[in-house]
Amino acid sequence: MEITHIEHIGIAVRSLETAIPFYENVLGLKCYNVEEVVDQKVKTAFFKVGQTKIELLESTDPEGAIGKFIETRGEGIHHIAYATDGVQAALDDVAEKGVRLVDKAPRKGAEGLNIAFLHPKSTFGVLTELCEDPAKK
Amino acid sequence: MEITHIEHIGIAVRSLETAIPFYENVLGLKCYNVEEVVDQKVKTAFFKVGQTKIELLESTDPEGAIGKFIETRGEGIHHIAYATDGVQAALDDVAEKGVRLVDKAPRKGAEGLNIAFLHPKSTFGVLTELCEDPAKK
Repeated sequence: MEITHIEHIGIAVRSLETAIPFYENVLGLKCYNVEEVVDQKVKTAFFKVGQTKIELLESTDPEGAIGKFIETRGEGIHHIAYATDGVQAALDDVAEKGVRLVDKAPRKGAEGLNIAFLHPKSTFGVLTELCEDPAKK
Repeated sequence: MEITHIEHIGIAVRSLETAIPFYENVLGLKCYNVEEVVDQKVKTAFFKVGQTKIELLESTDPEGAIGKFIETRGEGIHHIAYATDGVQAALDDVAEKGVRLVDKAPRKGAEGLNIAFLHPKSTFGVLTELCEDPAKK
């Protein structure tokens, strides 16, 4: 697998409304997009920092992954997403190396990316996302 | 404060010896430096991913910050470090905006950087590091 850069870092927050002003006024970043991802039961807010995005995630359903994460661990860093050229090939490759997958095939994520998660049990506790921008293929 | 990019992401692991092969053989990244930071009671391993580094952190003392983190939460993402031009000015600026600081002044971190942490209570659960490379000043 060839990883080109860190596409984004996902951060779970209780409320975009209160977290966005921190990222804008304290860290000086600019929120350029707010989007709901119904499938993942989240509302997301994006900030660009060099090559990488900060993706704030607010749960829209306590039974969703972010809702459960916050209930168990509180707010905090949720996942790292690496940009790669071919997510399906990368999944096949890492599965063959014994890595447990959350997604056996890529699905649609925020901003139109094809995304898939590796299981944190196989990645030293880090929920790891692989993603590709189909517009760049 | 002007943030130029994400300098690194700090990840707490129980053992560099077992985690490094995952990052190298599964994710295809290359470990270019292993360094002990006595002051922080850690051994670190660095990988470059585009503009950003992955910094794996193994505790050298159960009483250190990483030792306690792993005992409480297990392995996982520990902090995000943003690169900025002037850490002291940034600290003064965010303190004035009501952010609680772990470090009131920058100190030496791995790779010779000047670093300082903001308190996660003020940053929506994300341990946030600001850093600058004195060689680039």
